[in-house]
Amino acid sequence: MARTVVSSKKKTVVIGYNQPFCVIGERINPTGRKKLAAEMAAGDFSTVEADAAAQVEAGAAMLDVNAGIPLADEPAILAQSIKLVQSLVEVPLSIDSSIVAALESGLEVYEGKALVNSVTGEEDRLEAVLPLVKKYGAAVVAISNDETGISEDPDVRFEVAKKIVGRAQDHGIPKEDVVVDPLVMPIGAMGTAGKQVFRLLDRLHRELDVNTTCGASNISFGLPNRRVMNGVFLAMSSGFGMTSAIMNPLHEEDMGCIRASDVLMHRDLNCRSWIKKYREPLPDAAAGIRGERRRRRVAATA
Amino acid sequence: MARTVVSSKKKTVVIGYNQPFCVIGERINPTGRKKLAAEMAAGDFSTVEADAAAQVEAGAAMLDVNAGIPLADEPAILAQSIKLVQSLVEVPLSIDSSIVAALESGLEVYEGKALVNSVTGEEDRLEAVLPLVKKYGAAVVAISNDETGISEDPDVRFEVAKKIVGRAQDHGIPKEDVVVDPLVMPIGAMGTAGKQVFRLLDRLHRELDVNTTCGASNISFGLPNRRVMNGVFLAMSSGFGMTSAIMNPLHEEDMGCIRASDVLMHRDLNCRSWIKKYREPLPDAAAGIRGERRRRRVAATA
Repeated sequence: MARTVVSSKKKTVVIGYNQPFCVIGERINPTGRKKLAAEMAAGDFSTVEADAAAQVEAGAAMLDVNAGIPLADEPAILAQSIKLVQSLVEVPLSIDSSIVAALESGLEVYEGKALVNSVTGEEDRLEAVLPLVKKYGAAVVAISNDETGISEDPDVRFEVAKKIVGRAQDHGIPKEDVVVDPLVMPIGAMGTAGKQVFRLLDRLHRELDVNTTCGASNISFGLPNRRVMNGVFLAMSSGFGMTSAIMNPLHEEDMGCIRASDVLMHRDLNCRSWIKKYREPLPDAAAGIRGERRRRRVAATA
Repeated sequence: MARTVVSSKKKTVVIGYNQPFCVIGERINPTGRKKLAAEMAAGDFSTVEADAAAQVEAGAAMLDVNAGIPLADEPAILAQSIKLVQSLVEVPLSIDSSIVAALESGLEVYEGKALVNSVTGEEDRLEAVLPLVKKYGAAVVAISNDETGISEDPDVRFEVAKKIVGRAQDHGIPKEDVVVDPLVMPIGAMGTAGKQVFRLLDRLHRELDVNTTCGASNISFGLPNRRVMNGVFLAMSSGFGMTSAIMNPLHEEDMGCIRASDVLMHRDLNCRSWIKKYREPLPDAAAGIRGERRRRRVAATA
């Protein structure tokens, strides 16, 4: 089964069906975050620094870095952000832009094998982004839409994904380095959005054998109780073969659902991560005794 | 697709793939509830009454009624419980016992089409329970084990389910009146328990086209944070075709996951139930204005 290997200077992460679900932190992105956009444009990266640390602490296996600020020098700011983030945390990065020059300036400074976010099935995007992915030996997120838009039919989107994978191979990029995004629509507007994605994920996993990712929070757009909806969507998607998501790891409900799905899909062997995360803390008395024993041991060996 | 229709005197419930997930309340069961067992044995049904009302209030579409008390007259107590519960709530009931005489005494007093819980693939159980199910025109839960025990191989359990369905048909019970329980093992002891059940549910839905149910809480036995694990298990199972569960509807986390899976599987059309349940209450001020407007309207039309 497809294994997408990405890396930083110090760390390798494998995205794959038998691996723990890969959480890609989405927070470093000024889209819709006015304050962050203004800061980044003014050369203030303090929020970026804080977001990087907090997301890794919360369990992100990778971080997405986006510097899409209107009228700003995106290639320069993205490169600066990548340099900064990779100096602060060890996890591999996803370089996120709709501007090809920004992707390239990010790739130029990145030390390791990045995930490029993203290419679509549109001809001009394919021929602009894939050569870059190949040149820098990166992996790439493939979004399953093309010139005709986003089909409501998952089988049409499957064909778009297949086309991108084929084109990547023409460019010398192996299939395992293409991570398909099935595109998540708001279920409040399109009631079949969940079933569409589940069918597409199932086919992408079984027939095309590729890894998959998505921006999950779109599913609950406009609905109340988004946390539970997003968490359940992530877990169900994981059951149908989704292997990563670009999401907010600071949302503990979403992370809890992903951890549970890892146990249920036999990706958290012996429930080790689950138990480590959730086991009951020792009552104070027992903790006190343990601390006392440790102190005695330390004293005895000193 | 299979539709299992059960009913009380006043209410019909359809279990099916395109229906909202059917929550069968499990609380009226003295197994492991010493106080309740003692009460029921002594003819005190106050807890049964309270449990019936609370479970329906919390969203149960059906209630399971079990009176398995060691050394007690189970057939009499079960019949008494069924009579009481059906006088208190309108939802259809599942009549739950391992003693055939108790199932029959429950069926005798039940007004409507009950769900009989349960029969296994063991010869003597099949030939004792199925004639009763036929006689009373009930539906039945079929547990996918037989004389050889519970196989770890989901394909073996599929064959057992298929055998029970066939035998039911021999007794004149249509396939849609057999609700298969795939048997849920504790994932802390058997790491593949989740994937086994998902595969089995998928085959039962696609190939055998039967409705399914389970006792979900077993999955998290011995693990911490059972609520999240059970809720995610229920939602993922629902994605693979499970159509009902015998569970505690008072656990709001589990119910939230089921409601989300109903939205995601397009069983909660226009997210109506979700929005009704979770929409934000109006701020006090707005509620005040609305109340004021209503009062004025009432006054104007009076």
